Amino acid sequence: MNSDQIKKLFQQVKQGKLSPDEAVQKLQHMPFEDLGFAKVDHHRAVRVGMPEVIFSQGKTPTHVAAIFERLALKKTNVLATRATVMQFEETRSRVPKVEYHELARCITLRQDKKKYGKGRIAVVSAGTSDIPVAEEALVTAEIMGNDVEHVYDVGVAGIHRLLANRDSFTKARVVIVCAGMEGALPSVVGGLVGVPVIAVPTSIGYGASFQGLAALLGMLNSCASNVSVVNIDNGFGAGYVASMINRLP
Amino acid sequence: MNSDQIKKLFQQVKQGKLSPDEAVQKLQHMPFEDLGFAKVDHHRAVRVGMPEVIFSQGKTPTHVAAIFERLALKKTNVLATRATVMQFEETRSRVPKVEYHELARCITLRQDKKKYGKGRIAVVSAGTSDIPVAEEALVTAEIMGNDVEHVYDVGVAGIHRLLANRDSFTKARVVIVCAGMEGALPSVVGGLVGVPVIAVPTSIGYGASFQGLAALLGMLNSCASNVSVVNIDNGFGAGYVASMINRLP
Amino acid sequence: MNSDQIKKLFQQVKQGKLSPDEAVQKLQHMPFEDLGFAKVDHHRAVRVGMPEVIFSQGKTPTHVAAIFERLALKKTNVLATRATVMQFEETRSRVPKVEYHELARCITLRQDKKKYGKGRIAVVSAGTSDIPVAEEALVTAEIMGNDVEHVYDVGVAGIHRLLANRDSFTKARVVIVCAGMEGALPSVVGGLVGVPVIAVPTSIGYGASFQGLAALLGMLNSCASNVSVVNIDNGFGAGYVASMINRLP
Amino acid sequence: MNSDQIKKLFQQVKQGKLSPDEAVQKLQHMPFEDLGFAKVDHHRAVRVGMPEVIFSQGKTPTHVAAIFERLALKKTNVLATRATVMQFEETRSRVPKVEYHELARCITLRQDKKKYGKGRIAVVSAGTSDIPVAEEALVTAEIMGNDVEHVYDVGVAGIHRLLANRDSFTKARVVIVCAGMEGALPSVVGGLVGVPVIAVPTSIGYGASFQGLAALLGMLNSCASNVSVVNIDNGFGAGYVASMINRLP
Amino acid sequence: MNSDQIKKLFQQVKQGKLSPDEAVQKLQHMPFEDLGFAKVDHHRAVRVGMPEVIFSQGKTPTHVAAIFERLALKKTNVLATRATVMQFEETRSRVPKVEYHELARCITLRQDKKKYGKGRIAVVSAGTSDIPVAEEALVTAEIMGNDVEHVYDVGVAGIHRLLANRDSFTKARVVIVCAGMEGALPSVVGGLVGVPVIAVPTSIGYGASFQGLAALLGMLNSCASNVSVVNIDNGFGAGYVASMINRLP
Amino acid sequence: MNSDQIKKLFQQVKQGKLSPDEAVQKLQHMPFEDLGFAKVDHHRAVRVGMPEVIFSQGKTPTHVAAIFERLALKKTNVLATRATVMQFEETRSRVPKVEYHELARCITLRQDKKKYGKGRIAVVSAGTSDIPVAEEALVTAEIMGNDVEHVYDVGVAGIHRLLANRDSFTKARVVIVCAGMEGALPSVVGGLVGVPVIAVPTSIGYGASFQGLAALLGMLNSCASNVSVVNIDNGFGAGYVASMINRLP
Amino acid sequence: MNSDQIKKLFQQVKQGKLSPDEAVQKLQHMPFEDLGFAKVDHHRAVRVGMPEVIFSQGKTPTHVAAIFERLALKKTNVLATRATVMQFEETRSRVPKVEYHELARCITLRQDKKKYGKGRIAVVSAGTSDIPVAEEALVTAEIMGNDVEHVYDVGVAGIHRLLANRDSFTKARVVIVCAGMEGALPSVVGGLVGVPVIAVPTSIGYGASFQGLAALLGMLNSCASNVSVVNIDNGFGAGYVASMINRLP
Amino acid sequence: MNSDQIKKLFQQVKQGKLSPDEAVQKLQHMPFEDLGFAKVDHHRAVRVGMPEVIFSQGKTPTHVAAIFERLALKKTNVLATRATVMQFEETRSRVPKVEYHELARCITLRQDKKKYGKGRIAVVSAGTSDIPVAEEALVTAEIMGNDVEHVYDVGVAGIHRLLANRDSFTKARVVIVCAGMEGALPSVVGGLVGVPVIAVPTSIGYGASFQGLAALLGMLNSCASNVSVVNIDNGFGAGYVASMINRLP
Repeated sequence: MNSDQIKKLFQQVKQGKLSPDEAVQKLQHMPFEDLGFAKVDHHRAVRVGMPEVIFSQGKTPTHVAAIFERLALKKTNVLATRATVMQFEETRSRVPKVEYHELARCITLRQDKKKYGKGRIAVVSAGTSDIPVAEEALVTAEIMGNDVEHVYDVGVAGIHRLLANRDSFTKARVVIVCAGMEGALPSVVGGLVGVPVIAVPTSIGYGASFQGLAALLGMLNSCASNVSVVNIDNGFGAGYVASMINRLP
Repeated sequence: MNSDQIKKLFQQVKQGKLSPDEAVQKLQHMPFEDLGFAKVDHHRAVRVGMPEVIFSQGKTPTHVAAIFERLALKKTNVLATRATVMQFEETRSRVPKVEYHELARCITLRQDKKKYGKGRIAVVSAGTSDIPVAEEALVTAEIMGNDVEHVYDVGVAGIHRLLANRDSFTKARVVIVCAGMEGALPSVVGGLVGVPVIAVPTSIGYGASFQGLAALLGMLNSCASNVSVVNIDNGFGAGYVASMINRLP
Repeated sequence: MNSDQIKKLFQQVKQGKLSPDEAVQKLQHMPFEDLGFAKVDHHRAVRVGMPEVIFSQGKTPTHVAAIFERLALKKTNVLATRATVMQFEETRSRVPKVEYHELARCITLRQDKKKYGKGRIAVVSAGTSDIPVAEEALVTAEIMGNDVEHVYDVGVAGIHRLLANRDSFTKARVVIVCAGMEGALPSVVGGLVGVPVIAVPTSIGYGASFQGLAALLGMLNSCASNVSVVNIDNGFGAGYVASMINRLP
Repeated sequence: MNSDQIKKLFQQVKQGKLSPDEAVQKLQHMPFEDLGFAKVDHHRAVRVGMPEVIFSQGKTPTHVAAIFERLALKKTNVLATRATVMQFEETRSRVPKVEYHELARCITLRQDKKKYGKGRIAVVSAGTSDIPVAEEALVTAEIMGNDVEHVYDVGVAGIHRLLANRDSFTKARVVIVCAGMEGALPSVVGGLVGVPVIAVPTSIGYGASFQGLAALLGMLNSCASNVSVVNIDNGFGAGYVASMINRLP
Repeated sequence: MNSDQIKKLFQQVKQGKLSPDEAVQKLQHMPFEDLGFAKVDHHRAVRVGMPEVIFSQGKTPTHVAAIFERLALKKTNVLATRATVMQFEETRSRVPKVEYHELARCITLRQDKKKYGKGRIAVVSAGTSDIPVAEEALVTAEIMGNDVEHVYDVGVAGIHRLLANRDSFTKARVVIVCAGMEGALPSVVGGLVGVPVIAVPTSIGYGASFQGLAALLGMLNSCASNVSVVNIDNGFGAGYVASMINRLP
Repeated sequence: MNSDQIKKLFQQVKQGKLSPDEAVQKLQHMPFEDLGFAKVDHHRAVRVGMPEVIFSQGKTPTHVAAIFERLALKKTNVLATRATVMQFEETRSRVPKVEYHELARCITLRQDKKKYGKGRIAVVSAGTSDIPVAEEALVTAEIMGNDVEHVYDVGVAGIHRLLANRDSFTKARVVIVCAGMEGALPSVVGGLVGVPVIAVPTSIGYGASFQGLAALLGMLNSCASNVSVVNIDNGFGAGYVASMINRLP
Repeated sequence: MNSDQIKKLFQQVKQGKLSPDEAVQKLQHMPFEDLGFAKVDHHRAVRVGMPEVIFSQGKTPTHVAAIFERLALKKTNVLATRATVMQFEETRSRVPKVEYHELARCITLRQDKKKYGKGRIAVVSAGTSDIPVAEEALVTAEIMGNDVEHVYDVGVAGIHRLLANRDSFTKARVVIVCAGMEGALPSVVGGLVGVPVIAVPTSIGYGASFQGLAALLGMLNSCASNVSVVNIDNGFGAGYVASMINRLP
Repeated sequence: MNSDQIKKLFQQVKQGKLSPDEAVQKLQHMPFEDLGFAKVDHHRAVRVGMPEVIFSQGKTPTHVAAIFERLALKKTNVLATRATVMQFEETRSRVPKVEYHELARCITLRQDKKKYGKGRIAVVSAGTSDIPVAEEALVTAEIMGNDVEHVYDVGVAGIHRLLANRDSFTKARVVIVCAGMEGALPSVVGGLVGVPVIAVPTSIGYGASFQGLAALLGMLNSCASNVSVVNIDNGFGAGYVASMINRLP
């Protein structure tokens, strides 16, 4: 422990083993973060319950499995996003208790079952094609210790279907809304709830959707004031932000 | 008249004043459109009731007034869009019966009071800032002989207000929807009606609206299939397209 | 059934089991959509003759076939867009009467042969590469109960060819124009007809066409006032909008 | 009143003037929103403490003052954003207790002094040019009943200055970060705190900042997972979202 | 022939077989282009020596071969651009005399050996990666009857190499310049010659070249006034424009 | 003169005043261009008849007048583009024979009346708003010694008007086409003529024309192969390129 | 001094005035940067000779003058960029020795005349319109203690002029190249020198230059490997980077 | 040798074998660069130690190997970038001493072991995904004769890790910083060092990173004044620029 190292320094000075000058010099050459750590720590303490996260895309199955195994030793929850079936299989051969979430393309290991969230997080998605992104948000929020509910397929062109499912998200403490194409859903949902809405543009759409740009711009320009936005297809980010809000005491 | 000119040619041949060869040569040097015109004419016949239109922006008051006066002689309705008060004053000094529509920035002269539209055109606008564009659509549709109704201030973030005014547009034969910011309104309206929706993105918005680009992309990617789109702030175009649809027999 | 639930409420009041005040309160807590549905229905009634539509891209053959089979039970026409031959084969094994439109990449099932369109829809396409999009528009319009005619390969750089085929689209009630590259065709066609023109930019082109962006911008800026635009390559949307216009009474 | 209308219906059934069947039918033709309103209300209840907001840009001083006066009658706090000195003067002539926040370009009226926020909101800004946007966020958060602290001029190119001021924002419950140019500050702050960070790109920058686009993209791509983003220069939106998070019980 | 058809009409009138009125009516129903053709013809006469062109990309070998065979019958030169080896093999099996230009990805058939160009066309290319585009321009210009010279690998970062090869292009009547990356070469060449320069941006480049956009913008903004630009990678277009200039009498 | 300087060097060697080694060293320190100039000269000879050109935008009237006066001494024609009336007045006070072209915003001085062009240049413009750009092209081409004709207001949405004026440009040796909005006119004109077409996109248009971007992209993607493009609103450049083509022997 | 404070801590421990535990706690509450500062200091030492810089745009003359006066007290050089004449006048009234550089729009105060640069910095600019940006670079480099030379008006379309002035920049230790329009100059200069080239795109250009975007992309894609790029119109940045390179021992 | 050829000319004049006039004429027809070369040479002399570089992408293994073999004969170092294992294998079969750098995708041959760099170059990278680009910079700098150190995985969201590794880059003479996503790292590093920073945006990121555009814009807008930027993923360019700076005497 860092404080211990510093304390040792002071004790050596006290015991006359080091002069104050030598101690100052030693202190300046100690790794910076050892001192900073004390301060950072308070922050990290807040992060208890945060899963360790692996972004799997572009990594070999062996690589994913190895990192997963190492992180699993810390006894926190572990989450690997953008993971393939092959990465999962390799990981399971080392960490048998992992689960695979096919739609969300996530591998999870649940070791900490405590609920950190104070309320429920609702994940609302516009079309069936948005579901993978929504599921990534959902799995992220769950593994971070939240109660989550997913409201499917309630696009704005069928507004009565959205209204009919309103109860599912008006009772939530935070709402995540995933939508591609014109990205209009967060505005409508934002107008129906009195809580923060995290909007996730998806890359779903044709032609002039420009891989999610249309949805992204739509969400940034939302006429509902309680909407903030994360990156295109970033279900993980939305789940993370929502969890952070939901665990506020 | 063109047919007459051609007939004359045939008569001259008949009378031996021209040889067939000379006639062919003459025909080939007659202005092209004189022949084509006959065909085009059928199309122009359809256009009866269309107002003559002046785009006033960048023109001097004198220039606008002069064109207006000349067009007024045809006894059709006349419309000047993007017109200033000064352009209006100058025009009125020459054509006393003109009217000025301040919000729409239009000058109109109503000389043909026939209703060409078969049903009603509804103009729905999202925010108060979209009203000038909506009014331009409305004035255009009216001067083209349509019954028009304007539903104000029914943005998607207050969906109950839109639903409460639903009767105003569900009974229309064509619906024009003007919206800036995220441009989501046409999708919601499109899902509520069974008629064509003409979407007009407006340049209203801050920052990442990029002068209407966000709304334009949103509308082009509408998840409602009955939506087609005109240019940013093009209220006139929307009114014109809607009129053309509404007068279909 | 919802109406039954409400009826029950009235019966309980009638029988004195509930006071009017209690009934009002109960009513306010019943699910919203149950009442709303009645109104929405009127709108849906308008939609009779609309085919049920499946967007096949990214779905497994089994998935497409299963949805198709279920929708076919409603006895309306069924349309699957962006469908592969394999998706078609699987679908045909369950619904033998389906047809495959190779160019349009569509599967159709015709169960309702009524003509809903009042006139003819013309589909005009600029180059041979635009034909798949044009055919998607054509198949969509046909399955929605319209007479449709396709005018091929009449790009603006060979204007006499377009003019020679003018009769094909000047008699139509609605015109769909598909073009890639500079997207100029809708402007020329729009100037030749007195009916609404639906422009479809296609992603055909090289270099600075930027996957249809050039054509899209060209069409939005059309100098012909009777043109409105749908998304890039969205033949289905154009066919749908045109059908909606063509069935206006 | 709507509930009254429904109550009347029940009373008529009770009195035998209407059969339950007739009442159901009548009910289905009553305006939709009258019922829906009740539910929406629950949501509005949540919004207690939200100030009424006027977007002043483009409005005449008289117009702003008139709206302000009317909203002031509700005894909630009132906020006018993007307001000029002239709009303020006119408003003060009608509502003497208003205050003007010059940097934030806001007019406020404080009638409800209750603290709705559970903790403190920190507003961190990168450069002196970002202060107007930061102040808009700050004024918004204050008028919505929050304790707010502003940490000025702690751009990432002078990281020790940011670290030296770390205590100011590590103790906050929500952090708003305003930055133009490369928009890097939210990533650094996000890595130092364990609470949600709302990033506001500002239009400050030269050349290739493209009026805030560079900062916007930077923030959307933040490598800190607890960051979500609002529109360029949208200090109000950030203050609003932060308030909503801070009042979560 | 059309003129003959019209002459016949006049003769029938002369012979009293048709009245002038009947003739006018008949004339109006004759295909439009038959009349127009006479005028268009003068234009087509100019086009003598233009090869028939097939854009092969996306076509099956059989399709390319079939079109090629048909066009070859006209005894003009034939050019197929963007052609694969397989398309060439299939074409050769039907038209044995065709040649394949591997770098240019072109199939040609030379049946008309006349020189139509008045001078020489120089094709200058910046880097080795630009050669395929340059060769497409070269093959196009050759098959259209021009003397062509290709100056390779004279990018602006090695200006002495360009200057050393100056004689090759300063004597040309038209210069085509192909360059990717920053697209600076046309400006330098344009300053060294007193003839028209056709600039072809290529899609060669990394990262921020954005598939030729950087080169395209560079060329459009050339500080040399004698430069005009064609589409990205459009070697064919450059060869065609240059040929048209070079054959001016 | 440079050759003289070099000759002198050789004479000094011949006379024994310099050793060959000394001469080589001297030669290497002589200004580079003195040698290069001889080669460049041939190129400049071609440029005879080119006017000296001043880009006036952003210069003071005094500055423009001073440059103009100096250039006028060379007895060539002089052209100042983007010139204001004030710049003209100041210039006229020094060079009385200058003329001002109001629409084209150009000042010209005609001192060399020789015709350098071999044929006629046609300038075709789509709308009345494109006329300033077209006139700049026209004035440029005239001052460079060409016969020029301007065909006004023949946009593609009124194709018969364009066809009726076809003779004006089908006889030209080069055609300049100016168009804003969708920029479709060059494609249509390009298909009607057998000579090079220089396309000039103008910044005319609303909303999604994005200051000429739509027209620019349209022209770059022209389906007519004889079209090349210059920068947005660059009438001068088009006139220059056309002149260069027209003077080819 | 910080090290002293820490030393004091150790001495107090040595003297028994503090226990090691108390010292650790005290250390953790000392301002973070006090420790970090020691390390940062080495870095700041390097910065000796760097002028204090004020970005004047958007500041009042009084504000600029006040900051300037305060910074002048440090006896380093002071630089205010983007300064107006009024800001200069106000500053001079407080700090009489300041100079104004009109073209560069800079105010400077020279208090430290030491040469920090090891060699010469050449500033090369393409057109006369690029001079303000080039002058800003030049003034920045000079006030930072460098010998600077400015080579004017050597655009790539007149390559012999650039070559004739080659000596001016081939002897430099760093070269700054400013160019608008196509931004080609850095590539040519980069190929002629064996030292680092800092490229500054300027916003000079018309139409498709898009306020410097064309030049920026051109420079980023430079085919010369010794080129790196700063922001559009950022003459100050280029001068700063060049100075930093030039003072490397 | 060129000087020899010129000397010969002078000697022939001296010996009366050529008249001065004949000599001048001969000189003018000698290849341009032969004279220019003398001047260029000085520049090339500076380049000693620069490796010969092959850009391998898109070349066949045989092609890469052949060029590599030929360049190896010059006894300088040789570098092939963007090389595959297969290209390496083929090259090694001809030049056995080559090495392959897997992460950097480079083949190198070290024949010149001299240190040309005066100090150390630090390569700092933000995330593990940026390592290939960073390694390309590192290998380039090494083969050009520099001491290089790579600091891995010090992204801005974990600022204490960056600070802890500060010694690695604060002692460097030039720092290269590679980062994707928001591209914020160069700003932070730039603020910590007093030497030039070369920023390399990488194409790493999701959604709105737009293949490195976000990072590129971020770096161009860096608030640290000592940062200049190279193209996206251009590790080679950064290594080259850094080497050029580091070898400045």
